[in-house]
Amino acid sequence: MIKIYTVSGYEEVGKNMTAVEYNGEVVIIDMGIRLDRVLIHEDVNIQQFPTKELQKLGAIPDDSSIRNRKVVAITFTHGHLDHIGAVAKLAPHYPDVPIYGTPYTIKLAKGEVKSEQYFEVKNPMYETEYGEIVQVSENLAIEFVRITHSIPQSSMVVVHTPEGAVVHTGDFKFDNNNPLGERPDYKRLRELGKEGVKVLIPESTRIEQPTKTPSEAVAQMLLEDFFLYEGMEADGLIATTFASHIARLQELIWIANKMGRQAVLVGRSLAKYTGIAKQLGLIKMKGAKAVRSPNAVRKVLKEVSGARESYLLIVTGHQGEPGAVLTRMANGELYDIGKRDTVVFSAGTIPNPLNRAQRYVLETKLKMRGVRMIKDLHVSGHASREDHRYLLRLLNPENIVPAHGDFRMLTHYAELAEEEGYLIGRDVFVSRNGYMVEIK
Amino acid sequence: MIKIYTVSGYEEVGKNMTAVEYNGEVVIIDMGIRLDRVLIHEDVNIQQFPTKELQKLGAIPDDSSIRNRKVVAITFTHGHLDHIGAVAKLAPHYPDVPIYGTPYTIKLAKGEVKSEQYFEVKNPMYETEYGEIVQVSENLAIEFVRITHSIPQSSMVVVHTPEGAVVHTGDFKFDNNNPLGERPDYKRLRELGKEGVKVLIPESTRIEQPTKTPSEAVAQMLLEDFFLYEGMEADGLIATTFASHIARLQELIWIANKMGRQAVLVGRSLAKYTGIAKQLGLIKMKGAKAVRSPNAVRKVLKEVSGARESYLLIVTGHQGEPGAVLTRMANGELYDIGKRDTVVFSAGTIPNPLNRAQRYVLETKLKMRGVRMIKDLHVSGHASREDHRYLLRLLNPENIVPAHGDFRMLTHYAELAEEEGYLIGRDVFVSRNGYMVEIK
Amino acid sequence: MIKIYTVSGYEEVGKNMTAVEYNGEVVIIDMGIRLDRVLIHEDVNIQQFPTKELQKLGAIPDDSSIRNRKVVAITFTHGHLDHIGAVAKLAPHYPDVPIYGTPYTIKLAKGEVKSEQYFEVKNPMYETEYGEIVQVSENLAIEFVRITHSIPQSSMVVVHTPEGAVVHTGDFKFDNNNPLGERPDYKRLRELGKEGVKVLIPESTRIEQPTKTPSEAVAQMLLEDFFLYEGMEADGLIATTFASHIARLQELIWIANKMGRQAVLVGRSLAKYTGIAKQLGLIKMKGAKAVRSPNAVRKVLKEVSGARESYLLIVTGHQGEPGAVLTRMANGELYDIGKRDTVVFSAGTIPNPLNRAQRYVLETKLKMRGVRMIKDLHVSGHASREDHRYLLRLLNPENIVPAHGDFRMLTHYAELAEEEGYLIGRDVFVSRNGYMVEIK
Amino acid sequence: MIKIYTVSGYEEVGKNMTAVEYNGEVVIIDMGIRLDRVLIHEDVNIQQFPTKELQKLGAIPDDSSIRNRKVVAITFTHGHLDHIGAVAKLAPHYPDVPIYGTPYTIKLAKGEVKSEQYFEVKNPMYETEYGEIVQVSENLAIEFVRITHSIPQSSMVVVHTPEGAVVHTGDFKFDNNNPLGERPDYKRLRELGKEGVKVLIPESTRIEQPTKTPSEAVAQMLLEDFFLYEGMEADGLIATTFASHIARLQELIWIANKMGRQAVLVGRSLAKYTGIAKQLGLIKMKGAKAVRSPNAVRKVLKEVSGARESYLLIVTGHQGEPGAVLTRMANGELYDIGKRDTVVFSAGTIPNPLNRAQRYVLETKLKMRGVRMIKDLHVSGHASREDHRYLLRLLNPENIVPAHGDFRMLTHYAELAEEEGYLIGRDVFVSRNGYMVEIK
Repeated sequence: MIKIYTVSGYEEVGKNMTAVEYNGEVVIIDMGIRLDRVLIHEDVNIQQFPTKELQKLGAIPDDSSIRNRKVVAITFTHGHLDHIGAVAKLAPHYPDVPIYGTPYTIKLAKGEVKSEQYFEVKNPMYETEYGEIVQVSENLAIEFVRITHSIPQSSMVVVHTPEGAVVHTGDFKFDNNNPLGERPDYKRLRELGKEGVKVLIPESTRIEQPTKTPSEAVAQMLLEDFFLYEGMEADGLIATTFASHIARLQELIWIANKMGRQAVLVGRSLAKYTGIAKQLGLIKMKGAKAVRSPNAVRKVLKEVSGARESYLLIVTGHQGEPGAVLTRMANGELYDIGKRDTVVFSAGTIPNPLNRAQRYVLETKLKMRGVRMIKDLHVSGHASREDHRYLLRLLNPENIVPAHGDFRMLTHYAELAEEEGYLIGRDVFVSRNGYMVEIK
Repeated sequence: MIKIYTVSGYEEVGKNMTAVEYNGEVVIIDMGIRLDRVLIHEDVNIQQFPTKELQKLGAIPDDSSIRNRKVVAITFTHGHLDHIGAVAKLAPHYPDVPIYGTPYTIKLAKGEVKSEQYFEVKNPMYETEYGEIVQVSENLAIEFVRITHSIPQSSMVVVHTPEGAVVHTGDFKFDNNNPLGERPDYKRLRELGKEGVKVLIPESTRIEQPTKTPSEAVAQMLLEDFFLYEGMEADGLIATTFASHIARLQELIWIANKMGRQAVLVGRSLAKYTGIAKQLGLIKMKGAKAVRSPNAVRKVLKEVSGARESYLLIVTGHQGEPGAVLTRMANGELYDIGKRDTVVFSAGTIPNPLNRAQRYVLETKLKMRGVRMIKDLHVSGHASREDHRYLLRLLNPENIVPAHGDFRMLTHYAELAEEEGYLIGRDVFVSRNGYMVEIK
Repeated sequence: MIKIYTVSGYEEVGKNMTAVEYNGEVVIIDMGIRLDRVLIHEDVNIQQFPTKELQKLGAIPDDSSIRNRKVVAITFTHGHLDHIGAVAKLAPHYPDVPIYGTPYTIKLAKGEVKSEQYFEVKNPMYETEYGEIVQVSENLAIEFVRITHSIPQSSMVVVHTPEGAVVHTGDFKFDNNNPLGERPDYKRLRELGKEGVKVLIPESTRIEQPTKTPSEAVAQMLLEDFFLYEGMEADGLIATTFASHIARLQELIWIANKMGRQAVLVGRSLAKYTGIAKQLGLIKMKGAKAVRSPNAVRKVLKEVSGARESYLLIVTGHQGEPGAVLTRMANGELYDIGKRDTVVFSAGTIPNPLNRAQRYVLETKLKMRGVRMIKDLHVSGHASREDHRYLLRLLNPENIVPAHGDFRMLTHYAELAEEEGYLIGRDVFVSRNGYMVEIK
Repeated sequence: MIKIYTVSGYEEVGKNMTAVEYNGEVVIIDMGIRLDRVLIHEDVNIQQFPTKELQKLGAIPDDSSIRNRKVVAITFTHGHLDHIGAVAKLAPHYPDVPIYGTPYTIKLAKGEVKSEQYFEVKNPMYETEYGEIVQVSENLAIEFVRITHSIPQSSMVVVHTPEGAVVHTGDFKFDNNNPLGERPDYKRLRELGKEGVKVLIPESTRIEQPTKTPSEAVAQMLLEDFFLYEGMEADGLIATTFASHIARLQELIWIANKMGRQAVLVGRSLAKYTGIAKQLGLIKMKGAKAVRSPNAVRKVLKEVSGARESYLLIVTGHQGEPGAVLTRMANGELYDIGKRDTVVFSAGTIPNPLNRAQRYVLETKLKMRGVRMIKDLHVSGHASREDHRYLLRLLNPENIVPAHGDFRMLTHYAELAEEEGYLIGRDVFVSRNGYMVEIK
């Protein structure tokens, strides 16, 4: 019998962790953190905080329901922090258990491990290719299926069991025109559907949008339409987006090149994510540079401020995060931002009251300085309702356990499933953090 | 001295009418209707209703403030009904005064005149080309400037006076990638800015969106991304959009061709708008057909229902309008719509309680029949806040009279203008229906 | 074993019907209609429509899951149409099965039966007192517990089984200060809690409000504060509220008396509900009169319009229902409503797109006539989240099946229950129309 | 000629300041602060910050438009910080100019002056009675008219000029049933209306609510209905409300007495406001005590936590303000708040993203500790649309300058005025911070 442990991420968007058990053996999928739970406590520094405390705060998964199970593998769907951010805290609970993921994901996870100040993580970590099927025990094998999302090398994780496949979607969208050329592996998904999917564990964050999520190519077009505008005579141009959104950053670099400006990426996390991406050939930095150290940042921003028309600044801070580059600019630090500057938000506002407040503070300060702002040149990285329907038709799973969402999102997923012939309680299971669903 | 008569459309989105007076001579811009004011009265048939009654209902402009002025020209910015729909009722108030507009606009206006059952309109109507400057009196000349919107041959109307130009934007967006190839005439706008714009009369409907409105190319991409989806195995495909949105219809026809399906446009207004567009070379109907008469509609829908996989139906009724094709389908008429069909809404919901209710009824009925729906594959045809800012910088007008919006929209426009250095009451004037603004 | 058939009202607010089975014997609770499902079809006249058709439209419960069970009693919690409105259509499915309810409820149900034009209802109907325990089979007894709501003589229905009580709340609020003196029977509820409640079936309509619902005394104060205002010099005064809301009507009559005006209730349904209420001593009509026939209505409104300062009109039509008195007034019929009149809405807007549209039409028309409107002098009749929590603590039920709400409301109820120590799937069951929950 | 200087509070809710000039002499009305502008800067301590800096931050009014005018009097409408909070910073700009207000207001203003650490305020401050007419120059006299709001001794300020009265409403509601017995002075308002009001300067914060604001008696009833609930068996009871809302605090003390619990008010600002109120006989503290010093707070909360059923705690922190008592409790300080406690919010959430975030953090933390929360047992202190209409009819002013609101609120007020026969730009003036309106 297959058991799905809905460890975490079933009551929130954040700190994802799921475990699949067959015949006493367990594969873990994701170990994420929940940053808003850290944010509400002013004195919490994740790197220095013990696991138990972070669990009590709701910042990382409480994995007590599986701690004594026989775990044979840990897998990561992709490299966002709500999927890998707790690795340094939780992997030590499963000593020697190997960790698998795509190369970009594993490299990011290793970075997390390195910056941890409390624990040492000794688990072996393996970079796995799409398509490779890794036997992790006599009965169980895992596989990473290529899918599109807002970070490179995202994957659906398949756990092959003698009773059929368990497919965890990770975070995904069906992007058929991604400017970087990544495409969902429809062929393999269709095959899996034919072979028989026992359980589907889909993310649910945008299930309420009654449409198909636009391609990343739309974001590219929105950005080009603004920046390459006939007669656009802006002086200082500052774009801000997610540091891990390599496709978006690539588009901005291309645009800077077309405008005859130099793209300058400023901020530690931008340097981190693009650095690894460059190493793997996932981004071309031609015509761009990334600066990281405080001194270099100060120096480059001084240069830029004296010749604004020659640069396209790309900075961290789209949510007004404390300490991020744009946040500091708005405070009057680093660069005399003002009337001559336009800030382009290539990101939405994360719908959490804390983010809204930070973003409000940021925008208020920028407005008081006379900065022009342009918002929402962005598309989501998550599947909408009609994408989910399509996945259901591709995979035709026997059972569904919606994941990665609060109760409302999970139940909306269940509603969609009912439209497709499933029934809640019979073959769609809305579960909660810390519980387990038995699949008969 | 220039006077701007804000006749109508200054307290609502609908029934636009403005008049520009210089030295006792008047140019009228637009004569629209307001359909929601007709909708709330069940027994009103516009074609058969007298002008006074329709004015009392708030369905067409009350033009009493300019009836006794010396009108030398009537101009139309574009062919939407909220800009030309009252021509048959109001043009007779200004006998013999010539009417000007682009060819597509004038042909549509002639259609309105023809279907009127109460009045006879004898005003001469002239098809005017972009760029042509038409002297309409000793002091006044008019000019149509090419601009992009959701109907072909939209224009900004310029009234040239000895004191400078008065520019009425009509409805517009800055679309730099329109799939049909139409582009805003930035060059002429920039020239006008240099020559000196005395008054700008801009539309205000989407002033609250803090972004740049996406290009029509984005709508095309959204549609292609859905329809040309790998593995899309839909049976019946039904798209619905605005009948006058020729670019959108063209995209749908292209898509049908790529899918190897025949596009069939069903409904009287679709036939009307595409008919005139075809005649002017504005749409290529290759691979498509439009059916209009009740018999033809019934026949073609019977055919389609027997071979759904061979057609892409394009129908009226995206707002659930009574009598429209999709509305009737939802009622079980014309075509046995059901589980095998997907309805694609390539249109937003017009934010009026009556439209919301009609749309709700439509969707509820479709859902009860098991129809799959996909929404919002659409972009707006109206400029957002940052487009408006760009226009202000292009034209650098001395005075501004925001139009085409309710009080909230007009005052939001005034806020934008204040950010750009104007001051309400000094050079930005928020006016009301029936009043007049004197420009010093 | 107890089975709860969640026949209807588990996917909507409307057409409630639940059945409790023990040992093969069934008690039905409520048989309601869903008016918005009737409204979306223009040609449906409930009285003349057959049951099957109405079920297909989703207008009345589909009772097929219990049609062949052995039904021993039908009970009504209270007299609102979403609880009794389908009696004439569905009671014939259970011939000779007796129907029970409080006197006001039964008299209203008899009215429904009488106006039916398609079926004849022969079931015996019994007026039952609060507290009386009626043995309806060897194993089962029913009981009506006094509770407060927005119609007189509302009750919770208890089905006593050998395994413990099943409590269906009907619609309720905990009103400790109702101006008519009705109070919840806390004593009996506490006793039931001690005796042991096997299953609680609570309504869920306002579960999302994180507060305690205000007493009807608050509505009375809002009305008095407006009408008895120092210096209130209104001319025509027109109040509109729910025709079955006897407490509210009584307050308005008292207020009219205090103002030295005559209260005149105009409209058929007002006459119906107050007529029965008066007969049972539930309302004092002193100083008021109700007019019903078209002629009387016309006559009295003519009188009132000639001496507006002497009357307080109380009319139907607060949701802009077609044919209601206020709706007709807004159309210019019956009474020349205008600048001298103030309309007081002592009712909220029912949050359904159709109602919103009707209400919008009503308000637009009234506004165009210069009528002053004052809204929201009203409190809800439904329990909020903290009232529900209190009920849970009073009854301490073993199992919960949330009712009377859409999926979102039912799941929100489940969330509350989880806060109180229950667990979804274990002892809280979110069910759907037509399904059944087995209680172990 | 009368000039109205709309110094501040005309683009926000906060930092109110208006000046009325006649014949070169000026009366100032209010000098408030805007706390959210302080909050967005982490390092700002108002008491220690110079005036210019605070003006630059937008935290206090920029009074440069009137600094060189001949000011003859400074008046305060009431004691809220957005009306008196800048006294210590701005009064020194007008040396020796006397300050007037009701006794409670002046005592609070003196407290502000005392805690200032940067400036010394030497202006004489006079406690003025309602009805008293104070001649402040040969031409000008001022008068305070009794009105109701959410703090004691609120007033409308009248500036009597040879051209008629200028009435500034301050913040107000028409409360005809205030439990403390305060009533609006309708008689005087009606007289003023008859004598002739040249200009009305009304607050606009709740102009968009289409109703009459409920009386404070409704809040009392909501609280009683919750606390005096039959069977309410709560253990720890903690209420939180505005520290200056003396009526609300009195109600809570009365309720505690009825419950046989001791009311304990904890927190510095609660002690401050109730201390002055007690001194003026505005509150009866019988059965209650207020603790202020950190030691006393710690001691009393330790006592309470050992005998929760004996106390009703009344604490600061309803908006989650950092450092407030409830905020600290939620952090696990001062009192082991948890499952046995119920927190009653007798206050709304202030609709500003920063407040929302603080409140969200507070509620999240309380929820994680298992605390029961009940919200919205509260009514507003501000007039709604229909109250404003009534005031217009009472005073019948010649001109209107809406105050105390953002642009949207001011324009909504203008819309109401237009319904009552005024016209924007003619006799209703929507102004902005720092501008001046000339009254002809």
